[in-house]
Amino acid sequence: MNITLEQAEKAIAAAKQKAVAVDTKMNIVVDDAGANLVAFARMEDARLGSLDIAIKKAKTARFFDMNTGIIGELSQSGGSLYNIEHANNGLINFPGGVSIRNSNDEIIGAIGVSGSSVENDHAVASAGAETI
Amino acid sequence: MNITLEQAEKAIAAAKQKAVAVDTKMNIVVDDAGANLVAFARMEDARLGSLDIAIKKAKTARFFDMNTGIIGELSQSGGSLYNIEHANNGLINFPGGVSIRNSNDEIIGAIGVSGSSVENDHAVASAGAETI
Amino acid sequence: MNITLEQAEKAIAAAKQKAVAVDTKMNIVVDDAGANLVAFARMEDARLGSLDIAIKKAKTARFFDMNTGIIGELSQSGGSLYNIEHANNGLINFPGGVSIRNSNDEIIGAIGVSGSSVENDHAVASAGAETI
Amino acid sequence: MNITLEQAEKAIAAAKQKAVAVDTKMNIVVDDAGANLVAFARMEDARLGSLDIAIKKAKTARFFDMNTGIIGELSQSGGSLYNIEHANNGLINFPGGVSIRNSNDEIIGAIGVSGSSVENDHAVASAGAETI
Repeated sequence: MNITLEQAEKAIAAAKQKAVAVDTKMNIVVDDAGANLVAFARMEDARLGSLDIAIKKAKTARFFDMNTGIIGELSQSGGSLYNIEHANNGLINFPGGVSIRNSNDEIIGAIGVSGSSVENDHAVASAGAETI
Repeated sequence: MNITLEQAEKAIAAAKQKAVAVDTKMNIVVDDAGANLVAFARMEDARLGSLDIAIKKAKTARFFDMNTGIIGELSQSGGSLYNIEHANNGLINFPGGVSIRNSNDEIIGAIGVSGSSVENDHAVASAGAETI
Repeated sequence: MNITLEQAEKAIAAAKQKAVAVDTKMNIVVDDAGANLVAFARMEDARLGSLDIAIKKAKTARFFDMNTGIIGELSQSGGSLYNIEHANNGLINFPGGVSIRNSNDEIIGAIGVSGSSVENDHAVASAGAETI
Repeated sequence: MNITLEQAEKAIAAAKQKAVAVDTKMNIVVDDAGANLVAFARMEDARLGSLDIAIKKAKTARFFDMNTGIIGELSQSGGSLYNIEHANNGLINFPGGVSIRNSNDEIIGAIGVSGSSVENDHAVASAGAETI
């Protein structure tokens, strides 16, 4: 099972709505089950440097099938996955990357959001993922 | 002047419509005036390898403010720009990248399309650019 | 709004003057609003390894629209942006990168300075930014 | 012997003057004898994609101590240096890169120019190199 473009665009629309609700400007990425880009939107005046971070968050969430914040906890200094960021041409392990599941709870993709605090990034990504 | 997300999504919608009309499945990228990604859509079953090509076509069209096919003519073996592709971390110089202009004929971004023949790629990119 | 070459050269001249005043030899980079290089100067005997650092400081300051030292505080071990340096082909998050604003307080570019202590780097970058 | 920053800025000023005279907008790079950047200027509205090309032209001219156009002739299909562009993280072998020599005819650096036709690029680079 793989996310469709229609589903990805629905996730981006929901994430944009949440971003407006919390008064932020976000870069929003949706990857498919193969960790390849399906859809993207950068809101006006969203930080340029957050574009690549959003792309890497979606990739990281799908590569490990967990929220990026969880990998972040495991990769702190002294942690079991310390410095995992050097693999896969660069990972981002702070919150804002979330798996997307279908109604059978199968993973069909991932969403990555960047542009504000990590708490806001995660909230906006979750809003996008939960609409599927 | 810079393209807005709303304009970018309008260009992608027009390009998708044209892609369906010519019975193809495309990767469609819209960059802003700074050659940074604004919006992206990959249609179901569009070739995975065309994703990076579409991204590079949009970048190339904005970096040189001309259709990518024109640069391709100048960079053939023996041409004045032979091997220009080695600059800018990789360019794509065959058709499918087109400048996007506003009503004052100012360049506000670029569109890159990949997934079918170069003729179809260019036709779909042009449909997207002309809707702005 | 985007910085002009004339403004960028004025910022570099002011930064050079400050660098001489504090007896240092600096690499000085000015980027535009699109995070692309506008002007650069390397003073005689400035450290060669600081060239790339100055380029990355300017990029980082514009990508996140804040002083690079602030991102550095957020990206320490255990911080919310830990390991953000792996995005965007490498960021530099210690002091020496500063936003450049016009008289309307709009960001029109960024300056990155490297070659001495981070305190001196920041002082020289600020001298360049404030002259605009 | 190595080019000074003052000499590099003099070369850029002469190149800018020539660029205006031939009605073009250029990216102008000066490297030292170590092939490291000394000074750079991008004129307003110069092509973004020419920035990296100008950097690579200066590097190529110093790496091989000849005009980039000459290397271009040797690296055509069937030529003795065919595909040399793949070395050194990317070279540019069409005209616009020129060695800079001091009054003793010693090579002290190189200038790379990009933004117009290869004929104009070479003319502007030569104007910069000859002022030293």
